[in-house]
Amino acid sequence: MTHIVQMLDTHPRSDSLTSDRRALLECIEACFDCAQSCTSCADACLGEQGNLSHLVRCIRLNLDCADICEATGKVLLRQTETDLTVVRAQLEACAAACRACGDECQSHAEGMGMEHCRICAESCRRCAEACEKLLASLAA
Amino acid sequence: MTHIVQMLDTHPRSDSLTSDRRALLECIEACFDCAQSCTSCADACLGEQGNLSHLVRCIRLNLDCADICEATGKVLLRQTETDLTVVRAQLEACAAACRACGDECQSHAEGMGMEHCRICAESCRRCAEACEKLLASLAA
Amino acid sequence: MTHIVQMLDTHPRSDSLTSDRRALLECIEACFDCAQSCTSCADACLGEQGNLSHLVRCIRLNLDCADICEATGKVLLRQTETDLTVVRAQLEACAAACRACGDECQSHAEGMGMEHCRICAESCRRCAEACEKLLASLAA
Amino acid sequence: MTHIVQMLDTHPRSDSLTSDRRALLECIEACFDCAQSCTSCADACLGEQGNLSHLVRCIRLNLDCADICEATGKVLLRQTETDLTVVRAQLEACAAACRACGDECQSHAEGMGMEHCRICAESCRRCAEACEKLLASLAA
Repeated sequence: MTHIVQMLDTHPRSDSLTSDRRALLECIEACFDCAQSCTSCADACLGEQGNLSHLVRCIRLNLDCADICEATGKVLLRQTETDLTVVRAQLEACAAACRACGDECQSHAEGMGMEHCRICAESCRRCAEACEKLLASLAA
Repeated sequence: MTHIVQMLDTHPRSDSLTSDRRALLECIEACFDCAQSCTSCADACLGEQGNLSHLVRCIRLNLDCADICEATGKVLLRQTETDLTVVRAQLEACAAACRACGDECQSHAEGMGMEHCRICAESCRRCAEACEKLLASLAA
Repeated sequence: MTHIVQMLDTHPRSDSLTSDRRALLECIEACFDCAQSCTSCADACLGEQGNLSHLVRCIRLNLDCADICEATGKVLLRQTETDLTVVRAQLEACAAACRACGDECQSHAEGMGMEHCRICAESCRRCAEACEKLLASLAA
Repeated sequence: MTHIVQMLDTHPRSDSLTSDRRALLECIEACFDCAQSCTSCADACLGEQGNLSHLVRCIRLNLDCADICEATGKVLLRQTETDLTVVRAQLEACAAACRACGDECQSHAEGMGMEHCRICAESCRRCAEACEKLLASLAA
């Protein structure tokens, strides 16, 4: 659907940051997907008229997580002259943001039956795991 | 692959900006896809050692187009209390950015055989068309 | 305080988009200032426990305006190989977003005595005017 | 010049992440300033016709640093329901990005007399120090 794989296949630099190409691709896709889910979940929470006051922390964490995932996705998408120290630190921050936001969303999925929070929690969890897997491949 | 459709399906507000749900979904997806293609094309151009000097305008337009598509995608993703005047103006700007960037990329695809520019041009064209189609549905 | 003026003074390309350098500088600064004010106003509204339900539209417009101003600020900051059609369309969108958000903020400043909305309205108004002034200088 | 101080002074939540308000303010301002300097330095480097090939790594790091500083500035600007773990991890990433980018810029300021790189290096250094100072205040 997206053009990420084709863009990376035609990129002139192969000095990519990892030999685990699949972990890289999954992490890039998970970052952008999570940024979108969090942007949408913040807005869906804002539209929950009766329950809005219980969703303040969720909206806050959604907005942080969206900003952090978006920045991480763009850093990972770049293949030219990568700085490994920057990538590692940003992946750590992204995993932390996704864990915090995913836990908050999950609690509203369970406690209030919020479906958009359940889907967003899934997107956050996938991104946290993709960041951790890519981090592990960089250490190797 | 992404969770956009599921997020919108579970959104509490149905006061969406258009009755043409398909045009909306395609435009949201095209905006984020184009933002990613342009971020990657700017970086791929930067990695083209022999041809870099010919790609300066392409990199510039890629960066503008990525910023504009990202902002547009986020504005469209939000369904709560939409302001139609803002949406329309941002869609116009996004179509203009995608046309300019797509034309530049296309010229390098043809003139220099740059494959990443060819794919990015495709992504820009799809996004320009999706913006124009959504604009038309708003006017109706 | 910021380094914008120094950065532009040392930029190698003088093919800037306007001969009215002051209008350009004011617009760049107003865009980034407005993006920050709107990010903060969305968060301040979210923290208004008793009044939150009345501030939903304000938060929504703040988030749109922040995204659009940020993109516009970055497009204007770039001086290399500027595309005038893209700049113009994005300035139009930015003025529209600032007008819509500023009006909404102003109504809460007046109706509910919200000080953060009053300051944000001021920041939005300044940015809308700066965009319109720069647009006028481009047409000349 | 910007409205950051006024926005924070009128914010309804005082559950801010630190008692060192000055460290917080300086860090927020440094993050946005550095994001702008890096966006401009990437573009100024791109405009350096004779020297472009030596500035590829600088442009790459500028773009990463701009994205990371912008995300960090927005996370710090938010005062409602702050998650300390997320803030800490993002501050670490931001300091790392600013150190890497600042060192690269500094080398071009010294080696090639690039004035925009010298100013950007200053902006990066200030931001790295502000992040580290804020981190220290959070630990206390």
